[in-house]
Amino acid sequence: MATGVWLAGGRGSVAVTSIVGATAIRAGLADPTGCVTELPQLRSPALPTLADLVFGGHDPATTRLCKKAEALAAAGVVPARLVAALTDDLAAVEAEIRPVPVAATQLETAALIAEDIAAFRYRHSLERVVVVNVSSTEPAPAAHPAHGDADALRQALGEPGTVLPPSSLYAYAAFVAGCSYIDFTPSTGARLPALDALAHRHAVPYAGHDGKTGETLVKSVLAPMFAMRNLRVRTWSGTNLLGGGDGANLADPGANAAKATSKQRVLGETLGYEPQGNTRIEYVDDIGDFKTAWDLITFSGFLGTSMRMEFTWHGCDSALAAPLVLDLARLTAAAHKAGRSGPLTELAFFFKDPLGGVLGPETSEPRSEATRTDGAGRPQDPARAERAPAGTVPHALAEQWSLLASFVRGLADA
Amino acid sequence: MATGVWLAGGRGSVAVTSIVGATAIRAGLADPTGCVTELPQLRSPALPTLADLVFGGHDPATTRLCKKAEALAAAGVVPARLVAALTDDLAAVEAEIRPVPVAATQLETAALIAEDIAAFRYRHSLERVVVVNVSSTEPAPAAHPAHGDADALRQALGEPGTVLPPSSLYAYAAFVAGCSYIDFTPSTGARLPALDALAHRHAVPYAGHDGKTGETLVKSVLAPMFAMRNLRVRTWSGTNLLGGGDGANLADPGANAAKATSKQRVLGETLGYEPQGNTRIEYVDDIGDFKTAWDLITFSGFLGTSMRMEFTWHGCDSALAAPLVLDLARLTAAAHKAGRSGPLTELAFFFKDPLGGVLGPETSEPRSEATRTDGAGRPQDPARAERAPAGTVPHALAEQWSLLASFVRGLADA
Amino acid sequence: MATGVWLAGGRGSVAVTSIVGATAIRAGLADPTGCVTELPQLRSPALPTLADLVFGGHDPATTRLCKKAEALAAAGVVPARLVAALTDDLAAVEAEIRPVPVAATQLETAALIAEDIAAFRYRHSLERVVVVNVSSTEPAPAAHPAHGDADALRQALGEPGTVLPPSSLYAYAAFVAGCSYIDFTPSTGARLPALDALAHRHAVPYAGHDGKTGETLVKSVLAPMFAMRNLRVRTWSGTNLLGGGDGANLADPGANAAKATSKQRVLGETLGYEPQGNTRIEYVDDIGDFKTAWDLITFSGFLGTSMRMEFTWHGCDSALAAPLVLDLARLTAAAHKAGRSGPLTELAFFFKDPLGGVLGPETSEPRSEATRTDGAGRPQDPARAERAPAGTVPHALAEQWSLLASFVRGLADA
Amino acid sequence: MATGVWLAGGRGSVAVTSIVGATAIRAGLADPTGCVTELPQLRSPALPTLADLVFGGHDPATTRLCKKAEALAAAGVVPARLVAALTDDLAAVEAEIRPVPVAATQLETAALIAEDIAAFRYRHSLERVVVVNVSSTEPAPAAHPAHGDADALRQALGEPGTVLPPSSLYAYAAFVAGCSYIDFTPSTGARLPALDALAHRHAVPYAGHDGKTGETLVKSVLAPMFAMRNLRVRTWSGTNLLGGGDGANLADPGANAAKATSKQRVLGETLGYEPQGNTRIEYVDDIGDFKTAWDLITFSGFLGTSMRMEFTWHGCDSALAAPLVLDLARLTAAAHKAGRSGPLTELAFFFKDPLGGVLGPETSEPRSEATRTDGAGRPQDPARAERAPAGTVPHALAEQWSLLASFVRGLADA
Ligand SMILES: NC(=O)c1ccc[n+]([C@@H]2O[C@H](COP(=O)([O-])OP(=O)(O)OC[C@H]3O[C@@H](n4cnc5c(N)ncnc54)[C@H](O)[C@@H]3O)[C@@H](O)[C@H]2O)c1
Ligand SMILES: NC(=O)c1ccc[n+]([C@@H]2O[C@H](COP(=O)([O-])OP(=O)(O)OC[C@H]3O[C@@H](n4cnc5c(N)ncnc54)[C@H](O)[C@@H]3O)[C@@H](O)[C@H]2O)c1
Ligand SMILES: NC(=O)c1ccc[n+]([C@@H]2O[C@H](COP(=O)([O-])OP(=O)(O)OC[C@H]3O[C@@H](n4cnc5c(N)ncnc54)[C@H](O)[C@@H]3O)[C@@H](O)[C@H]2O)c1
Ligand SMILES: NC(=O)c1ccc[n+]([C@@H]2O[C@H](COP(=O)([O-])OP(=O)(O)OC[C@H]3O[C@@H](n4cnc5c(N)ncnc54)[C@H](O)[C@@H]3O)[C@@H](O)[C@H]2O)c1
Ligand code: NA
Ligand code: NA
Repeated sequence: MATGVWLAGGRGSVAVTSIVGATAIRAGLADPTGCVTELPQLRSPALPTLADLVFGGHDPATTRLCKKAEALAAAGVVPARLVAALTDDLAAVEAEIRPVPVAATQLETAALIAEDIAAFRYRHSLERVVVVNVSSTEPAPAAHPAHGDADALRQALGEPGTVLPPSSLYAYAAFVAGCSYIDFTPSTGARLPALDALAHRHAVPYAGHDGKTGETLVKSVLAPMFAMRNLRVRTWSGTNLLGGGDGANLADPGANAAKATSKQRVLGETLGYEPQGNTRIEYVDDIGDFKTAWDLITFSGFLGTSMRMEFTWHGCDSALAAPLVLDLARLTAAAHKAGRSGPLTELAFFFKDPLGGVLGPETSEPRSEATRTDGAGRPQDPARAERAPAGTVPHALAEQWSLLASFVRGLADA
Repeated sequence: MATGVWLAGGRGSVAVTSIVGATAIRAGLADPTGCVTELPQLRSPALPTLADLVFGGHDPATTRLCKKAEALAAAGVVPARLVAALTDDLAAVEAEIRPVPVAATQLETAALIAEDIAAFRYRHSLERVVVVNVSSTEPAPAAHPAHGDADALRQALGEPGTVLPPSSLYAYAAFVAGCSYIDFTPSTGARLPALDALAHRHAVPYAGHDGKTGETLVKSVLAPMFAMRNLRVRTWSGTNLLGGGDGANLADPGANAAKATSKQRVLGETLGYEPQGNTRIEYVDDIGDFKTAWDLITFSGFLGTSMRMEFTWHGCDSALAAPLVLDLARLTAAAHKAGRSGPLTELAFFFKDPLGGVLGPETSEPRSEATRTDGAGRPQDPARAERAPAGTVPHALAEQWSLLASFVRGLADA
Repeated sequence: MATGVWLAGGRGSVAVTSIVGATAIRAGLADPTGCVTELPQLRSPALPTLADLVFGGHDPATTRLCKKAEALAAAGVVPARLVAALTDDLAAVEAEIRPVPVAATQLETAALIAEDIAAFRYRHSLERVVVVNVSSTEPAPAAHPAHGDADALRQALGEPGTVLPPSSLYAYAAFVAGCSYIDFTPSTGARLPALDALAHRHAVPYAGHDGKTGETLVKSVLAPMFAMRNLRVRTWSGTNLLGGGDGANLADPGANAAKATSKQRVLGETLGYEPQGNTRIEYVDDIGDFKTAWDLITFSGFLGTSMRMEFTWHGCDSALAAPLVLDLARLTAAAHKAGRSGPLTELAFFFKDPLGGVLGPETSEPRSEATRTDGAGRPQDPARAERAPAGTVPHALAEQWSLLASFVRGLADA
Repeated sequence: MATGVWLAGGRGSVAVTSIVGATAIRAGLADPTGCVTELPQLRSPALPTLADLVFGGHDPATTRLCKKAEALAAAGVVPARLVAALTDDLAAVEAEIRPVPVAATQLETAALIAEDIAAFRYRHSLERVVVVNVSSTEPAPAAHPAHGDADALRQALGEPGTVLPPSSLYAYAAFVAGCSYIDFTPSTGARLPALDALAHRHAVPYAGHDGKTGETLVKSVLAPMFAMRNLRVRTWSGTNLLGGGDGANLADPGANAAKATSKQRVLGETLGYEPQGNTRIEYVDDIGDFKTAWDLITFSGFLGTSMRMEFTWHGCDSALAAPLVLDLARLTAAAHKAGRSGPLTELAFFFKDPLGGVLGPETSEPRSEATRTDGAGRPQDPARAERAPAGTVPHALAEQWSLLASFVRGLADA
């Protein structure tokens, strides 16, 4: 089942690492380490194979894919020998990465985006296309009354001015084109009531948001550990040093705030209270793609005894993100095929700030409306693995895994 | 339901911290932080309350409990104000800590141990008694043919010489006295076919072994994280620096080896392969009760990219252990009441080297016979939370939690 | 030689730890660990002894000294047994800590401060008094034309309004009272041309500024290590987590900026270039007096190979600062006695941002005018240990030590 | 002044990195980062330039230099582009790396080694040759009576059997060939009274031993920091994880012990007492050339307050060692030219276990006879920078630097 993966931000680090990787695995030049849908517990005939995936996308940048791939190789993100071996394959994808359309109104821009996707689908006889947002993180957008209603939104988009941020415009275009949509970034994406309604109207699913690849991944197993042992976390303070393209972008306070919020959410949700301490992101050009995160956790145990833990995570962000992008594309395509529409809350496993509800019309700022803890600030039960009702998603990794595994089993049964 | 907790090693750090803590919580002077059976998901009327517990034990040491408690306060393990407030309560327990009986044969010694326990039970009108081994770690014992058969064992114990190490003799005495038994140490304890048979014959349950309180606890959430993300752990190397009584004991290579084996087991079981690297234990007197563990983990991700993580854990061993001793005593007593006998594999949550099977008669060395990975060296499915069949126990903390939670629910239904 | 130590901020953590410590050492209850003037290489009959020191000071706070000392003991900064043993001694000092005088003009306030000091000197028949600023860190003050000239300053102070920040007003009062002055904080203190002139006019020395007690201390040996090995530091990024009174104060962006600048200065001065990365200070109440600093250093070596180092420093700020306050008081008093006036650049060993010159009249912002590297951005020669000419002070700890040692030898010869 | 550098272990990692680096710098393809004799404070016309150096050596291994260089590039030790660009230069050196001569007696072997060196010198019209031992670390050799006397040694070498370990036989051969000798390894090398006598007889200098490149380098600045601040180090515990060729060798307990001793020596010498804790070396193949060292330091300060510091060092051993090999060759050649003979104690800067004396005839085990602290276990004065008398060498890096700088100045004056 030939499946299109349309990447908003198709010339960025995550996108190109995903393309190189899928191509290399398909060619038998690499194994699928990092791809969770290749684990025996999650493998399923209901999913398109890696070889089924065909790539295209939008990006305002003009760096050629093979140049970007070479830069990634020089930075140690992908092996140079793979890039050399895949020159032809990359050239084939090159033609499918389009400049971002510009038009007089956002409605026309969305139409042009949808057209590009439709043409891509036609050219490659694709069964369906998943649109994945891996473009630069946006600052939080201004609220707009049309965010609350699908028809009002269509109307507003038809007038000059900016109603939706780019991430949401991609979601709009995806839905009207009958495509599913994944937001791998902390941007707004599909998280607006109007867009949720549109997804349901077009019977397409969507997933998000903000790929969980580093410090937050570790938090999503350590925070439950403290909760399961009834240890009281007092401080959780994190410092993230990162360079690379997205790092520079996150140095922008607006974008930074969105990310930092995503990163702390798991603590409140898992522990049932907010420990002291913040998460900081510092851009350090020299660090490049290999992010270093340092976290200090202080906690008290039996009779109030004070203890502490520190960790340093030194991970290559794009190498951690890319296999998840492939997993998400396969899972979302399969869900679409299986008839799912609306938010795929069962994919919380992949995200820092998983979808668990829809924003009310009174605000369009990205915010968390998901899980509330049961009653008196107690942590979620990590054993709970049923389908999460709207508004509640687990944040503990093991619980997210259970949810994911039963989701995959459900696809196979469907 | 007045329940006795008979502590082999009753004057040691873990024992005294447990006694001080239970007494302080009962007196309303401290809250039950660190006690997992006080979490809303695990609270159950099937368990004796903390106030139901009555303490006694054996120990060859003669330091008075209140002196030991003061030493623990000086070391920062328990608050000095609690020790001061609990002088009378500690004096009451003081009378219940007996010297270790000595007799001509181990059979007679076991009889004297059993007598002490029975007298304790009678004095306090206890519904039942749980024997908990928190005495010094033993070196691995020599194999003995009588370890394989309950009747041969009884016979051999009746002759002069050493057939069982102390931890196993306590288990023997406990079983013949109709008591359940918990091994919180890495020693042999009840893990011999003869003792397992005896436990079944006397219809008593047992649990173990080696309390999971520090580095291994962290491993039991981080290793599953790598497994769930299909990341390949290449090196996992740990250094443990510890002082205190048990630290000095572990400097002994024999005892040390038993502990180091317990500590690495979770990796092989969870990942499905053995990464490079070892776990080292170094005794540093100055470190005292606050252990410092440092672990380096290197792993490869997508397309082979090399990444790494380090953590430092700075925990107070006795403060981490004591609430688990209380939890285990309550859970094991309840299981006994509910009619369970033999190994309580559902209590894996508490142990570095959880019981999952019984040693064959061909060897009496403590060893792992538990979980095998499913087929080709693949990690366990952390979603699997059913009752573990004999011979398989989970090592991932979240899965152990699920098992524990359904165990507690089962007790309530019984 | 009875010597007064007048502490601006006399009820703060650093002040009270200094008082408790000097008193305890004098009483034979503690040894002088942490006091560098007690090292064999720096001991000198030219210095007043610890027993010669008599304490007084100003503070707007009203917490009694013994209460503050008990709070420090509860926080683990000083041993509780010392505080208990020194009740009478602390009560004696209590009477000498005065409220901060308030008057219509700053000139009158300064006169009242000077009067308090003079009365203290008279009451205790002190040979001389050293005024030490250990009060809360101030934000950078506004520039004022009178900062450039001593006479203009006197004039301006006589009018209503704020010409000097408190730290500088203490320096003003100290100088007119014939006392030497030490600024242990990152505030402006004596670093204004008008105040420097005044110190010379009254023939008194002054020292500063910003006690070097933690992360910066480590930097002042690690940065020279990289320089001496001709390794190129690329990134030096530091995170400081701290609680306690001064921590809350530093959460104020103004004060914070002053401190962060002090903390990075050693890098530029020692390496001869500015590596990437910043120093962050985060206030975390739970951390209390035990600061945790984490630094990441990336560097390149032979043929450009990339390497890295991390350190975590977990120090008790007040316990690190207090012995240095005592050292500085003894050294400055001895310098005064030996006839030194103006900046004591030889005391750079003690400071994050050591005095090495005087600000021009065009700005009154605290800034660095010290060492420039020799020519083409090369590091200072750590072997250079002669008396630093005005405008150049070493930042490498070993070089500062050499300078200090020859300064002490010079005092003895004088 | 064309100067030969004869590398015992010429096909090893350190040797080949040195050769690649010197060649690349000479060709203008790299800058001399990491070479301390290129710092402005140490540059001197008395030293041969990097371009003056000509390389040769002995090695039993047969891997071609360019293959080894490519392996180093693949491991990230040297840039691949340099290896590619230097193919011809490496081929020229290839011819100069000889197999290790074998003969009936060690005397004859030494003669063959000396012949190889003499021929190399003649072929390249070298002014002088420095022999540098960068071969695999040896286990400690057995004592032999002939180690105490040069004539007895000559006699004993003439008989069958093993009198000297390889590192010492290279020193013997170097001296009789009129060459200076550097031991960069922890092996015995020239540290035998008989060899010291021989060096003096042939009027050649020697230097050593055990290059200081990682954890010990950091110790040599941090230990003095604690000493200068009069802080009491209680524990210093180090874990070194390393792979690569030398790593495997060090897994051998004999070699390992020699190294671990070298690594702790700086502490006792600098602090004046031995803190608790050990240094461990663990071989982890996966770690490769990039060693990871983790050290925990606990210390007490003012009034006994307990504090701690941790560091992780992640360095490329060969990239840290190679520039020092070049520095040492240049400095030793210049010393030879200036007429120095015997141990060059002023080169302590480069070594973990610097030469400071000669072993007595009663033992031939490598051991420390260097610096004793002054009297009552007090640390060395880091300001002392004079020429170290036999038997005393500084261990603090800054003091070693001063010694080195005055040594270089002395060469220029000579
Ligand atoms: N790498 C990770 O681990 C990770 C984890 C979570 C989230 N993310 C998010 O993924 C996104 C991509 O990260 P990256 O490292 O690849 O960043 P990048 O800067 O390398 O790539 C972003 C790409 O988006 C393009 N772009 C900008 N505006 C666009 C627009 N309007 N339409 C289409 N393309 C546009 C840019 O030209 C660029 O090529 C970021 O938002 C990041 O926050 C990454
Ligand atoms: N503290 C933890 O986190 C932790 C975790 C896992 C396992 N454990 C195990 O718990 C045990 C106790 O640890 P601790 O720190 O309290 O040690 P400890 O040394 O303070 O106490 C051990 C006590 O056992 C007593 N003892 C020795 N031989 C005995 C015997 N034959 N019969 C009865 N008592 C005997 C000793 O006199 C001592 O009082 C150790 O085996 C340790 O390995 C502790
Ligand atoms: N502790 C360290 O390691 C260290 C290192 C370098 C610098 N310092 C500096 O030392 C100073 C004291 O630190 P601390 O931890 O004792 O802080 P603290 O908050 O405990 O004490 C400061 C005291 O100053 C008093 N104060 C405020 N304004 C005053 C004024 N106008 N006149 C007189 N007193 C005044 C406060 O009431 C308080 O009692 C801070 O400026 C800090 O930045 C401390
Ligand atoms: N790299 C560092 O940071 C560092 C620091 C201090 C000391 N050292 C020492 O330097 C030495 C070299 O380290 P390396 O990493 O290059 O090791 P390596 O294993 O890569 O190289 C050692 C070479 O010595 C050769 N060799 C073995 N026996 C020999 C003999 N008898 N004569 C001549 N050559 C012989 C081997 O064949 C090999 O090529 C080791 O002893 C190491 O302990 C290295
Ligand atoms: Na650390
Ligand atoms: Na670390």
